[in-house]
This record gives sequence, structure tokens and C-alpha cells, in this order.
Amino acid sequence: MAGPLAGIRVIDVTHMLAGPMATMMLADQGADVIKVEPPKVGDPGRARGRPIGMAPGFAMLGRNKRSIVIDLKQRRGIELMYRLIATADLFAQNFRPGTAERIGLGEPDLRRIKPDLVYVSISGFGENGPLAHKRAYDPVIQASAGVASIQSDRRTGRPQMVRVIVSDKVTALTAAQAMTAALFARQRTGEGQHVRLAMLDAVVSFLWPEEMDNYTYPDSEHFVQPNVRDLVYETADGYITMAAVGDDEWRATCRALEHPEWLDDPRFRTQADRIANADARFDLTGQALKTKTSAEWLAILDREQVPCAPILKPAEVIADAQVQHNGLIVEYQHPTVGRTRQTRPAARFERTPQEIRRPAPRLGQDTDEVLGELGVSREEIASLRAAGVVG
Amino acid sequence: MAGPLAGIRVIDVTHMLAGPMATMMLADQGADVIKVEPPKVGDPGRARGRPIGMAPGFAMLGRNKRSIVIDLKQRRGIELMYRLIATADLFAQNFRPGTAERIGLGEPDLRRIKPDLVYVSISGFGENGPLAHKRAYDPVIQASAGVASIQSDRRTGRPQMVRVIVSDKVTALTAAQAMTAALFARQRTGEGQHVRLAMLDAVVSFLWPEEMDNYTYPDSEHFVQPNVRDLVYETADGYITMAAVGDDEWRATCRALEHPEWLDDPRFRTQADRIANADARFDLTGQALKTKTSAEWLAILDREQVPCAPILKPAEVIADAQVQHNGLIVEYQHPTVGRTRQTRPAARFERTPQEIRRPAPRLGQDTDEVLGELGVSREEIASLRAAGVVG
Repeated sequence: MAGPLAGIRVIDVTHMLAGPMATMMLADQGADVIKVEPPKVGDPGRARGRPIGMAPGFAMLGRNKRSIVIDLKQRRGIELMYRLIATADLFAQNFRPGTAERIGLGEPDLRRIKPDLVYVSISGFGENGPLAHKRAYDPVIQASAGVASIQSDRRTGRPQMVRVIVSDKVTALTAAQAMTAALFARQRTGEGQHVRLAMLDAVVSFLWPEEMDNYTYPDSEHFVQPNVRDLVYETADGYITMAAVGDDEWRATCRALEHPEWLDDPRFRTQADRIANADARFDLTGQALKTKTSAEWLAILDREQVPCAPILKPAEVIADAQVQHNGLIVEYQHPTVGRTRQTRPAARFERTPQEIRRPAPRLGQDTDEVLGELGVSREEIASLRAAGVVG
Repeated sequence: MAGPLAGIRVIDVTHMLAGPMATMMLADQGADVIKVEPPKVGDPGRARGRPIGMAPGFAMLGRNKRSIVIDLKQRRGIELMYRLIATADLFAQNFRPGTAERIGLGEPDLRRIKPDLVYVSISGFGENGPLAHKRAYDPVIQASAGVASIQSDRRTGRPQMVRVIVSDKVTALTAAQAMTAALFARQRTGEGQHVRLAMLDAVVSFLWPEEMDNYTYPDSEHFVQPNVRDLVYETADGYITMAAVGDDEWRATCRALEHPEWLDDPRFRTQADRIANADARFDLTGQALKTKTSAEWLAILDREQVPCAPILKPAEVIADAQVQHNGLIVEYQHPTVGRTRQTRPAARFERTPQEIRRPAPRLGQDTDEVLGELGVSREEIASLRAAGVVG
């Protein structure tokens, strides 16, 4: 068995990041994901940010998928979609609210064709409501969900963005899990359903435990000032992180840093004391760590079992011994863009292993193959192509 | 039907954040998640960071679960676990590598009892390898996976942490999807399997598309300097974000900001030009936006359909009209901690709705109920309790 979702067919009209990353996970797990793209440029995510052939992000998000070009603005294109849907288990779309219905790809339309279809709609703010019409780029959601405020500069109070496209990606993971749960329910009951996810909802839900702790008990007066000190320490030659949570780890820290007197310091006696006096603790720790190199400190801290790590740059992550040991970065030859590196799927399934079976497709690379499987004749394909319905 | 995973039973010995957040998602979707906790303090995540009864994060992560206290250091405790496992579909653990095997809860041990069990192991760095022994708090993984480097201060180069516990939470979402996929495969084949996930792998995989773009094509010379300017703009009275990607959006921006001359500026003619001259564009945009209040600008930008948003503080997120419209924040009375607020599950399943069926349990609240369901007699429960095996 090729993957836990082998045999599942997904028809995917999502574009950019959140939708395609969700369906990448299903494709990695063996689903036959057919990516339906518009003529000419295809998914705008294909070209993003890079002058060369295929955006590096797309080389990952497109892997294990097949690409078919269908013009959904033509009636014959929609009719082709209906033939595809008849063979599908799951349909995913992230058009702006109302578009799918307008072009004939609404949930009731498709359910008539495939009664047990799992129909997944991903939106920015929701399918209706005051902001439903707004375009939801990542910074827009980071701003709206509170991420940019939580990340504010500690001195100036100026909001900052998290420099990971966290809104789209958190939505992707949340959507992939929901899609899989809906497929599971369908496997047991035989019934499909409509699954809806808004990026705003996914991101606020992601933040809620811990980052929104102060808003959980509205009647409580225990408002805790969020700790805005980073666990980033400067050493003689760079930066490391170090985190001592429990009493054991604090004692180990005092030993490693050769400051046994901290053990008797009333400011640091219990974990609550250490949280209350975090600033003083960070300052003292920071002073101590400036005296040796990162490598020296990490060896000492490791020996004393203080949780710690070097702060790696991306290139160092790739070269890291544990990353290598885990076989996390895989490299292969992509037929058009050449040598390509990316992470293998993170989770490892013992009996149904995930794998990279095929590289990200060129635009419309699999149009003929997919249509052929549907029983569309060569002549009909030629006619559809001549009319610009497929590409 | 109560949720897509109704009828699934999960035995969960995970603690802190990554594991419990993954099993929360399964519990929200109807699974019967039995949280097995050690005597006295239980999951350390229960008490974290707050002086009052239950950490706010736990009020969310523990919802929809039952709590049973079993001392896994006693042989009779492990024997009780075996009786529980015989009734389970999925077992999840995030002990340090080697611990589960040492105490008799290794995968082969449990598979003997329940041949089709899905056995899920979550680790920090992997089950073996040079860093497998290390304790993987969130900053340690942020440092090791490259997050802290990507978030570096743009002026000083000093690494910064993302102030969302992104390592644990990304691992949680990745794990929840993998668990669900394994349950799906089991539903079709009747076979369970071992699913393994390392936090390091989950986070590097999460970063790979886009944040690691420069490392995807090793032979390419198109190294793109990551854009370190935030899309955060100061207005006359606060901050907003604004993002114009396509040509239409750029034209709309020039109209909204009343700078038609930017349309003829050779630095901004194409999207590639605008990326190459991002600094100049941000500076000019920033100057223009200082002249009116946030509300004034947002009204104008919205009218011109420029993607934009106010940068909301957490309390403002809760009060936001779209968040309210989506019914995202739910409030209920918790029997011990009182009025409690949290997000509902983000994804909405039309036929198998998720719901908050029960508040987070007190430690060991359901011990008698769960043991009773196993057929353990009252006398035996009393004897087990007297010996400190259950609590």
C-alpha cells in the first residue's frame, strides 16, 4: 500500500498556498490529486517571486500531483469538471466566497453528480459576514488574528509580522486534518459532506492556547504580563538558546554557568519566583553566557542536561547532523528545473509509507492522460484544445 | 452523528502541548479521548504559568477528554493500561525516546494486546540520532529548525523567537492529520501501524515552502535576498497592514493613496520591478499613510479593493465583527474555574459537527467511570486506589 490515502481521488482547484499545501499532504499520503489550473499562467503560486521556471515553493506544493488545464470560464470546461467530479472522493476550492456557486461548481451542483463527495471550501474570513469580501493575504490575516500584535517590538510597541507565512500554512494543516477526518467519516457511513474553513478561524484557534491565556477566564484578575524577553542569548561568538523550566533544570543551569549563589537567591527559589523575576534572571544569565563561545557553552549545558540549542541559519539546518540523521531533506532531479531539494513528508507511517512519487508537474502536463482516463476521445481532446477549453 | 471521529477511542499519555493539542482535535471531532495522567500533579500542562486552579491553555487542550490517573511506575498500573489498550483504536505518547519501551508501553507490547492499534510516537528530534536525547522545548526547536534565524532583527541581525509556540503547535496539527490518516487506512484495511513524528521534522517541513526557497534549487544562482521589511505601516493614530500583489492591486493602491505618478514610475511598473524596489515602495507608501488615521485609510483602501487590515490587539480580535459573526469565540461555565472563553474548533463539518461536549476534566475526575466501563469492580478500584495505582 502506497500511503494511507492511496486510492482516494482529489479534484483540486485551490491556488496559492493554503489550499495547495493541504492537498500536498493528501498527495504525499497517496491520494491521486488532480490539480485543475486555468489556461496560460495556471496557479499564480507557480511563478511566485522567482525569475526562473518554477517557484521553489511550487516544486514542493505541486509534488505528487497531476496538472490539468481547464478553462472554467467556458461552459464546456465546467462540463468537463462534472465528468471529473463523478470520479472524485474530495473536491477542494478556495475561490472568493460566491464564485464557486456562480460558475456552477457550488456544493449542490457537485453533489448531484457525486452524492458522497467531500466538498471543502477554504475562505479568508468566512463565507459571509462583514469581511467575507476581503482578499486575505497572509499579513492581512496576521494583522486581523492578533499575530502581528503578539509579535510587537518589545521596546517600541510597533507591531511586527511573523516572517513565516503562518496564516496560510496553519490553515493548510488544519484543512488537511479536516479533509482526512471527513474522508474517515465517509468511509464509515458512506456519506460525504461540506467542510468549511476560514483562515481567520484557523489562526485564532491556533493562537488560543497560551498566546490568548489572558482572555480565557474573563472574570479572573490574574492578568499575566506576557513575557516579551526572547530566550536568545549572545555568546562570545554568536547566539544560543537555553531554557530551564523545572527546578532540576534551574539547578543544572546554576551548575553549568558556575553561579551556585543563584540557588540561594530568593528571587529564583521556586518556578513562580523565577517567572516573577524573569528580567533579572535573563540579565544575569545573559551576562554569564557572554564569556565563552557557543560551542563551549553548548557542550557544558548539554553535559548538565540544560535544554539548549545553537541558533541555526537555514543553510546550517540543512547540514545539521540530526536533520541528516532523520533523512529529512531529500534531493532529486526535477525534469525541468534540475536538482531540487525539499523535506520529505514529516510524519512516518510504518505500513503505508509516504513518498515523493512524482515531481511537481508542468502546467497542464497531465491533461491528456487525465482526460483519457475519463474516456474523452483523442478527437474530442483535440477539439477541446482548439477551443481553448483545455490546455 | 456527533463528529467525524465519533466512536474512536484514544488512549493518550501525552503531556504539555504538542500531543495534547493533537488529541484535542480528535476529541473535538467526537473521539473518546482518555487522558492518562500521573498521580498528584498530572500533566504538567495543567498548572503552567498561572497561580489559579487550571492553566487557561489546559482549559482548551483538555476539553472533550476524560481524565484517569494511573501510576505507570507501578506494575499494576501498566496492567491496567493493557486493559485500557484492549479497548482502544489509537494510543499516543510523547515520552522521551526509549521510555515507553522501558516501562512496558512499547509498540510491540501494545500490539500484542490490540493487533490493529494505531500507535503514535511524538518526539522532539527523532527517536534516535545525535540530538534524540535532548529535551525539546519550543525555543530549542525554533532555534534548531531555523525559525529564530528567519525572524532575526533586520537592523542588528540578532535572532528572535516567534512569540507563538509554533513548534509545538505545528507538530500538533501535523500529528492530528497523521493520526487521522492512519485511522482512515485502518478503517479500510483493518490494519494498525506505528506513526512517528519528530517536532524538528514537522517544523522544518512547515518552513520549507517559501521560507526555504533559496535552498530548494542547489544549482541555481538566483539567490533572492529575503524581504525583511514588514508590511506594517504607521498611520496618524496607529498601525495597519496593506498588501498589493498584482497589477490591479498596485493601481488601486496608487489611486487610494492619491499618488497617480507612481503608476509611471519605472521602479514600480511590473510586479518584478516592485519586488526589486521594495524598499523605495515601502518608504513612499509609509510616508503617504502617515497623513490620515487608520480608520480613514482602511475605509479608502477597502473602497479601492486594496487588501488591508487594522492590526488588532488580542482583545480587539475577540470583539471583532467578523470573529463575532463567525461565532468563533464560545463561552461557557467551567465547573471549577468558572466563566471560560475559547475558540470553537476551526473547521466546520456540515453533517458531523464538532462541538464542545465537556469541559476540561479535573485530574482523575473520570477514573472510576473509565475503570467501571472496563469491568473493574468497586472493590478492585478501592484496592488500586489504596495502593496508589489509580487516583
